[in-house]
Amino acid sequence: MIRMGVVGYGYWGPNLVRNFTACADTTVVAVCDSRDAQLNKMSALYPSVKACKEYSCLLEDPSIDAIAIATAVDSHFALALQAIEAGKHIWVEKPFTATVDQGRKLLDEAAKRKLVVHVDHTFLYTAAVRKIRELVESGSLGELYYFDSVRVNLGLFQHDVNVLWDLAVHDLAIMEYILGCSPVEISATGASHVQGQPEDVANMTCFFERGLMAHFHVNWLAPVKIRQTLIGGSKKMIVYDDIVASEKVKVYDKGISVKTTDDIYKLLVQYRSGDVWIPALATTEALLAEAAHFADCVEHGAKPVSGGESGLNVVKILEAATKSLKLRGSPVKIG
Amino acid sequence: MIRMGVVGYGYWGPNLVRNFTACADTTVVAVCDSRDAQLNKMSALYPSVKACKEYSCLLEDPSIDAIAIATAVDSHFALALQAIEAGKHIWVEKPFTATVDQGRKLLDEAAKRKLVVHVDHTFLYTAAVRKIRELVESGSLGELYYFDSVRVNLGLFQHDVNVLWDLAVHDLAIMEYILGCSPVEISATGASHVQGQPEDVANMTCFFERGLMAHFHVNWLAPVKIRQTLIGGSKKMIVYDDIVASEKVKVYDKGISVKTTDDIYKLLVQYRSGDVWIPALATTEALLAEAAHFADCVEHGAKPVSGGESGLNVVKILEAATKSLKLRGSPVKIG
Amino acid sequence: MIRMGVVGYGYWGPNLVRNFTACADTTVVAVCDSRDAQLNKMSALYPSVKACKEYSCLLEDPSIDAIAIATAVDSHFALALQAIEAGKHIWVEKPFTATVDQGRKLLDEAAKRKLVVHVDHTFLYTAAVRKIRELVESGSLGELYYFDSVRVNLGLFQHDVNVLWDLAVHDLAIMEYILGCSPVEISATGASHVQGQPEDVANMTCFFERGLMAHFHVNWLAPVKIRQTLIGGSKKMIVYDDIVASEKVKVYDKGISVKTTDDIYKLLVQYRSGDVWIPALATTEALLAEAAHFADCVEHGAKPVSGGESGLNVVKILEAATKSLKLRGSPVKIG
Amino acid sequence: MIRMGVVGYGYWGPNLVRNFTACADTTVVAVCDSRDAQLNKMSALYPSVKACKEYSCLLEDPSIDAIAIATAVDSHFALALQAIEAGKHIWVEKPFTATVDQGRKLLDEAAKRKLVVHVDHTFLYTAAVRKIRELVESGSLGELYYFDSVRVNLGLFQHDVNVLWDLAVHDLAIMEYILGCSPVEISATGASHVQGQPEDVANMTCFFERGLMAHFHVNWLAPVKIRQTLIGGSKKMIVYDDIVASEKVKVYDKGISVKTTDDIYKLLVQYRSGDVWIPALATTEALLAEAAHFADCVEHGAKPVSGGESGLNVVKILEAATKSLKLRGSPVKIG
Repeated sequence: MIRMGVVGYGYWGPNLVRNFTACADTTVVAVCDSRDAQLNKMSALYPSVKACKEYSCLLEDPSIDAIAIATAVDSHFALALQAIEAGKHIWVEKPFTATVDQGRKLLDEAAKRKLVVHVDHTFLYTAAVRKIRELVESGSLGELYYFDSVRVNLGLFQHDVNVLWDLAVHDLAIMEYILGCSPVEISATGASHVQGQPEDVANMTCFFERGLMAHFHVNWLAPVKIRQTLIGGSKKMIVYDDIVASEKVKVYDKGISVKTTDDIYKLLVQYRSGDVWIPALATTEALLAEAAHFADCVEHGAKPVSGGESGLNVVKILEAATKSLKLRGSPVKIG
Repeated sequence: MIRMGVVGYGYWGPNLVRNFTACADTTVVAVCDSRDAQLNKMSALYPSVKACKEYSCLLEDPSIDAIAIATAVDSHFALALQAIEAGKHIWVEKPFTATVDQGRKLLDEAAKRKLVVHVDHTFLYTAAVRKIRELVESGSLGELYYFDSVRVNLGLFQHDVNVLWDLAVHDLAIMEYILGCSPVEISATGASHVQGQPEDVANMTCFFERGLMAHFHVNWLAPVKIRQTLIGGSKKMIVYDDIVASEKVKVYDKGISVKTTDDIYKLLVQYRSGDVWIPALATTEALLAEAAHFADCVEHGAKPVSGGESGLNVVKILEAATKSLKLRGSPVKIG
Repeated sequence: MIRMGVVGYGYWGPNLVRNFTACADTTVVAVCDSRDAQLNKMSALYPSVKACKEYSCLLEDPSIDAIAIATAVDSHFALALQAIEAGKHIWVEKPFTATVDQGRKLLDEAAKRKLVVHVDHTFLYTAAVRKIRELVESGSLGELYYFDSVRVNLGLFQHDVNVLWDLAVHDLAIMEYILGCSPVEISATGASHVQGQPEDVANMTCFFERGLMAHFHVNWLAPVKIRQTLIGGSKKMIVYDDIVASEKVKVYDKGISVKTTDDIYKLLVQYRSGDVWIPALATTEALLAEAAHFADCVEHGAKPVSGGESGLNVVKILEAATKSLKLRGSPVKIG
Repeated sequence: MIRMGVVGYGYWGPNLVRNFTACADTTVVAVCDSRDAQLNKMSALYPSVKACKEYSCLLEDPSIDAIAIATAVDSHFALALQAIEAGKHIWVEKPFTATVDQGRKLLDEAAKRKLVVHVDHTFLYTAAVRKIRELVESGSLGELYYFDSVRVNLGLFQHDVNVLWDLAVHDLAIMEYILGCSPVEISATGASHVQGQPEDVANMTCFFERGLMAHFHVNWLAPVKIRQTLIGGSKKMIVYDDIVASEKVKVYDKGISVKTTDDIYKLLVQYRSGDVWIPALATTEALLAEAAHFADCVEHGAKPVSGGESGLNVVKILEAATKSLKLRGSPVKIG
């Protein structure tokens, strides 16, 4: 049983407390938030959990094994570093850190102390994404051609980060998890429509070493909610629609085959259009599965599915994309 | 009654002949194609139309008022120039020409002879696109924020042009028509998955002088057919879905309003989510309306909705996009 | 503040306890269930609520104003009667009672004691159904032609009642509420596919005094979930789809107009196909609004939207339908 | 090569002429219609086809092998009988005849002369319906539970027949073809909303000898177009949606399994929810395939897929349904 402290009881914190409570392998000891109103809400639902206004209250409690950080991005680094220095395992909300340097520093410090760094990329624990990874890993899609994602809605404006850090962060984590490889160069474009605010519409292309290309379109100002990813391979193609209640993952036996003809300048491109298959998916709650996985990492040394390294990879891409965005699409290499 | 010659009876030519025949203001005098099989198909359906293998047959027929060119893009320039020099009005399939220079030359030569140059951007004659333009022009969307288009399917590979020239060409013409203004800079990325062939997946951002940004995603290798455009404004937003049989245009009374608070660093972004309105659309065939409009331009000097100038604007964007594509997204100015 | 006792903590009871707790005008004093496991679950979430295995515990508690009955249908009558006799107001799950006679008896006994009888037809408290009623009442649909409902899914088999009592009960309550009038005759058909079990697929037609006709199709064995109602009028028509996350109610400006011609035997039926309008709907939780409304009825004598009379009307239709079902569709009058 | 005469060049006749012309095994010799305007339209498109105002022109032409009858239902019998008496094979539009007696008489007369009687139930020649029949025949659905069909839209009012004869006729033909068995009793209800006109909304239940039940809902006054059929079996279930452009047939590995427990009064109903499979379908035009099949029947004695017998079965059901409709749902046996 892992004993958790949670800092930040705003938008996502309540979901963490609920799931750490529901999970058989974790329990919540204390919650920290600077706002009385938020602490009162928490106490009403969980009278036995300690409510504290000072972060030191979590850091200094020797009964706490791990701290979950659910605050604004720019505070992740300081809070996580203190937790690590206090010998606590950490669970950090996405995006992991505000800069690549911060992420590297946290990984170094945690490694020294053999502490687990877990980044809460919840989508990696959904049945849909797990099934897609399984299909890609098994080779049934053939050679991968593209990963193309759209995530738009009339969304919560963030004042500190652009829309890539808020929305594309999900799809980047999914991409890294499914493809098992990282891009080498990024081109991004975007625009802001509220003076003095970060970009609210953005597009990003990730170039890989081979022909594979990924593209992400995100928008906080869309009238409809779309969460759709197309993954194309030489043998099969996948459409992943996260909006629909069922039939989220469809596998298309479609594609092209290229034949050379006698005349070497004339390629014959043929289309193949076969059956569609919609695999049944388990209906477990992702965050609950993630909590159990985190406990397993802390207690038994399991390798984190969304550990600090993968969280850092996502930050690397977001940092490069933000640079490219300022350069109106000029490509930026990932260091 | 405008008397038409048609050159090219492959994929699109039959639609032209059918509609020029059905239209009360146009008639087809002769069709030219180098392939016997195609001419035979034509003759079986239209026994009274002259079938010719030589283009001169159209050029030299004094009874022909106008020539419609429905051949591969790289032949547009030569065929159109000959037609203009023979004193014929021209109807050219999209994209207008393979280069900006070619397009300029044709416009100059036609202007000297006061001949009509019409580019077949058929979508501009659909009830859906006309309704959207009407809404944008009336100001009911408020200030325009973005134009975002996706056009993907398992498509016909073109061997001579990349997927932008084949698919985005439609959306660019729609964008120019709806917005009434042109972009100043382009960033594009893409990838090819068949060796030696042009890019089959591509993305393009168009920057405008103000905050407006347009984005286009096109793909010849998608397992599903998507033809969707989102247009966001400060007052209203439009979703245009060309796949559905009815309810193609939806107008959302949604958006944000930004208020400054006492603390000037804190903007209050508020969301507005009102009714949706789906205007009834006429069901006339676009190509038939376009044929009548062309006749009106030739006979009565009406200003072409999709004249050579707008066709050239689209080619300018495609040319810049193709340059940017080779530069992995680096922005390219439109001269 | 109305003090509630709740009997039955199985499938629906937990929702009641959660909402009576969340509602500012109600509170839960005690919950009764014969199963220890269920009481333990309740106590874990609501440590301050009394858990009792005996119903008398609720009946004899003078601090309890009203009892909510969330048990199997065939126990509603006995539990409700005891509650009324103990001077408690009642909130009864749907369907109200297993027979018309039981329902009448409860209404009589409650009337004698001036107690509120509320039947939990939750759909009547949704923004979608309220908006539809408002539109129908305002006359904007014109003369009503039909009410046509489909409610199917792979559902929870009930062993004691047929699928009409489980699924059509919702649509009948919605119909009564929207139309404000009751049918006079019923024809129903159905079939059972598990030996010894009630009908799992059924269809029901409700005849009204005028041309209006209502039809209901319900199915526990459907591979997909459909919850769709079409309401046709002479001026406008409504499609209500409860599955979609947004845009649940669409109002179609469609219909026919009938003109007599000189030849009286030749009617000219003309079609009208205008705009579609999707009204914005509030997003409040229906059950919470219903709890507040119940408190208002008990405390201030408000007229129940889903009172015992309307609950009884639904039972009358279900009883007649079950008779017709045994007669393979022969019409049965509502007494 | 079968030489066809076609009588009736209104709504459907042009489709017949086009497909009999396109089919390699049939050709159109002459078309008969009493209206000059219709004959002129035909002649403009098919100058070599004889246009005649008198039916005798078809009957007396010895070069004509078969006559296709595409006129109003109440004229089918007289025209078909004359054709048979003139020794012509017949192709009759649906519904076959206006009464069962008429259909029987035609079958008798045709049998005497060994002439083919083909009823144009076009849906039986679509790839979707053929695939469903194949699946049902192979036993992969298990024991059949229900066939449930909805066919509604804002439709063409027929003045001579009710909406069952116009819309349900399609679904009845599909049902007969797929199930390979006929119902024994019918219950139907309906309503008319235009004075003096036949029912424009109707519902029909077909009872079979076993537990199988079929239901049909049809409506000429619906604001949206729905063409959906659910077919449930003990092993698998099918959803057939004819509106969507692709993915028309979905096969669900869903269902229930029933286990008896020690307590014989307690059945344990378990749900199974597996994968969905969408078979690829050929894209041939149904009417063209049907024309070739008809030629095969006439020339080589192939057994008609939609011969007079199956056409008559459909008329039997429609006749019984119309009786039941007048009796407000009372069941009517099929003689």
